Amino acid sequence: MSKTKITIAGGGLAGSLMAVYMAKRGYEVHIYERRPDMRRADISAGKSINLALSTRGLRALEKAGLKDAVLANAIPMKGRMMHDEQGNLAYQPYGKEGQHINSVSRGGLNKHLLQLADENPDVHLHFEMKCLDVNLKEGTAKFLDADGKIHEVKSDLIIGGDGAFSAVRMRMMKRGRFNYSQTYLEHGYKELTIAPNAEGDFAMDPNCLHIWPRGEYMLIALPNPDKTFTCTLFFPFEGANSFATLTDEQAVLKFFNTHFADAVPLMPDLVKDFFENPTGSLVTVRCYPWVNQKAVLIGDACHAVVPFYGQGMNCAFEDCVVLDECLEAHLPDWDAALDAYQKLRKTNADAIADLALQNFVEMRDLVGDEDFLRQKEVEHTLCELYPDLFKSQYEMVTFTNIPYREALEHGAENTRIVKDIIAKGYTDRLEDRAFMTELLQKR
Amino acid sequence: MSKTKITIAGGGLAGSLMAVYMAKRGYEVHIYERRPDMRRADISAGKSINLALSTRGLRALEKAGLKDAVLANAIPMKGRMMHDEQGNLAYQPYGKEGQHINSVSRGGLNKHLLQLADENPDVHLHFEMKCLDVNLKEGTAKFLDADGKIHEVKSDLIIGGDGAFSAVRMRMMKRGRFNYSQTYLEHGYKELTIAPNAEGDFAMDPNCLHIWPRGEYMLIALPNPDKTFTCTLFFPFEGANSFATLTDEQAVLKFFNTHFADAVPLMPDLVKDFFENPTGSLVTVRCYPWVNQKAVLIGDACHAVVPFYGQGMNCAFEDCVVLDECLEAHLPDWDAALDAYQKLRKTNADAIADLALQNFVEMRDLVGDEDFLRQKEVEHTLCELYPDLFKSQYEMVTFTNIPYREALEHGAENTRIVKDIIAKGYTDRLEDRAFMTELLQKR
Repeated sequence: MSKTKITIAGGGLAGSLMAVYMAKRGYEVHIYERRPDMRRADISAGKSINLALSTRGLRALEKAGLKDAVLANAIPMKGRMMHDEQGNLAYQPYGKEGQHINSVSRGGLNKHLLQLADENPDVHLHFEMKCLDVNLKEGTAKFLDADGKIHEVKSDLIIGGDGAFSAVRMRMMKRGRFNYSQTYLEHGYKELTIAPNAEGDFAMDPNCLHIWPRGEYMLIALPNPDKTFTCTLFFPFEGANSFATLTDEQAVLKFFNTHFADAVPLMPDLVKDFFENPTGSLVTVRCYPWVNQKAVLIGDACHAVVPFYGQGMNCAFEDCVVLDECLEAHLPDWDAALDAYQKLRKTNADAIADLALQNFVEMRDLVGDEDFLRQKEVEHTLCELYPDLFKSQYEMVTFTNIPYREALEHGAENTRIVKDIIAKGYTDRLEDRAFMTELLQKR
Repeated sequence: MSKTKITIAGGGLAGSLMAVYMAKRGYEVHIYERRPDMRRADISAGKSINLALSTRGLRALEKAGLKDAVLANAIPMKGRMMHDEQGNLAYQPYGKEGQHINSVSRGGLNKHLLQLADENPDVHLHFEMKCLDVNLKEGTAKFLDADGKIHEVKSDLIIGGDGAFSAVRMRMMKRGRFNYSQTYLEHGYKELTIAPNAEGDFAMDPNCLHIWPRGEYMLIALPNPDKTFTCTLFFPFEGANSFATLTDEQAVLKFFNTHFADAVPLMPDLVKDFFENPTGSLVTVRCYPWVNQKAVLIGDACHAVVPFYGQGMNCAFEDCVVLDECLEAHLPDWDAALDAYQKLRKTNADAIADLALQNFVEMRDLVGDEDFLRQKEVEHTLCELYPDLFKSQYEMVTFTNIPYREALEHGAENTRIVKDIIAKGYTDRLEDRAFMTELLQKR
């Protein structure tokens, strides 16, 4: 009997991690990636430059033996630093003492994972291979190489890890009864850079995720190991303040000087970056089923989310862990394993998609709102004082492996409890252990 | 100056009507249709065999001078005839005296429209032409003919009237920021036939739409000029009673004899039809924008709806009317005309999609419910007695040209009013003109 053969479309973050897991299970794994080998070519890894790696992602990397190596190049971010229009700062910790998220380079992490996959003799990497078509029933896929030659490969399972515009999913879509939606925000994004200061050090506190919340739009910044920050402006495509109106140098400078005055002196290449960097769009993709005959989807291919909860990669890595666990539980019944995977993940993928959309409003608008900040303060105190009775939604999503769906539901309940505490004037009794314990246990 | 040239992808109901309108405006119109010429070839017109033509559709046909010819072959349906499991009948009129919907043959109507288009020297029909690709910016489209030859055509405007799986829309989808969803019901459908009786006449009352409501599923029947009825079973794909479980002759007969006993003797080919006819699926498609550079979508291509309000064709025809009106109002500013069209139609297309989904529940489940029937009775009385103050949702959708969005909103309000009248015991005062006038005017 020949070895079970797995084709993975896409050598991005999810595809390359999944390859490592599948090779560990003893299969022959082939990754087909559209782009050149990013370990050799100087190419963009696509989409955002840096990512926030947190508990779910770390658990998945640990399973592949890669956690420590990745964390060695990561920068811990312990909370949000809010910048108002006058340049005043307000800090809000993400969780309890010792909890933080990690700013990592998308490209660096992807290269790490490709390298790890490549070191396994059962993993075969094929670059500059564009997926042309997939036959779901036969398990065959056609790839076009850089010389224009078509390669048809047959395998026992095709894993579509080929991102938000997945070719594998496109083939599923053309078959009957595939539910699908793609929904764009009216905001796009533009990446900009904060340079190191004159001393060659970080120009701002590197252990925070910086946010300039401005209601309808916002700027954020994440630190990089080279002492720069990658900034992202999330901004409407159309309207009074929008990409459509910032069409010349003067307009850009006037806008930034008015709304992000403290950031402008830190961005020497602001105008150049603004006009040379592409304007990205922000899409939420939902679909079902994720499994169709000999193909299964993972990561953005089945659930692209907007980036505002920092969970896109973490969620994709969790897909890999859960798929691996379902294989462990159900093999040799592949159908049962794949069906268990999609059923477990679909509801959680929908939940993180909703949470990410909600968090956009929170980040750009509410973090500047006094009532909201008061709520966050009470919530933070409850998390600190009653860790067994109260977990914030952010903590559940970011620092635990609690299913996203539960985090969403508990989070809504938390908001009700905290608003109730404030409304009833219980805020001066937060440290009254007996009283608060009873109140929190009642729910 | 050469004539404005219009390419229409799809020679179905919407495409061929739109061609007539555009030729009347003085343009050179080319229809490219994937199928052979249905006036010559004996092919299915796709999807359902018959359709319910009502006010909106009739208005659109009248504008093309085709209303009387189509009505000559239509069968009026004045109300719903409900069949319970014991074969008892209950009749519910659709509207006021003189109001009815019309059972027409999809194929017959399509041939009529193609013929009308063909008679206009400015309309050119091209059959067996499969749309391969569209260049939205250039206004070019590539079609593959039956001999395998590719035709590239350039025009001033491409109208995508190519149905729920539109190739023009697919091209729009691959560009940025196109919102799209396709959502399937868990029910499919199967067409069956009720034969004429021994005397060669209709086996049931031909002036009704017959419904066998059974909660989770239903059978309906529409009359045809040849004295047959086309029946459609709307039935879950999976589950206890589903297409998945009716897999042999015995199971089919047992199921039909239990749940549709009065229909079985009228369907001599039941088993043959059940196994030979395809099982269709039911999709709702929503998208936006409908206009992209030199292309615009009409009909199912931008808003496929489920068939339960009998409005799919009527809505598509109304698109043609509104697009023509927008051209009339805004030309020579094509961009303004197309934008006005999509803005006017999108909210109404969403409304009829929602109404059609709601009506499925009403037809298969509620029409067997006593409370609901009581509400319908009160509603019907109000419509009859106070035509200027009260219009039922069904009446607004089916017998007026009131925008679907308004019909949806007024319909929800109607339900509140009727429930309130029943709850307060005002049902014996329905004929108290002064009292009811005040009550209805208050809203």
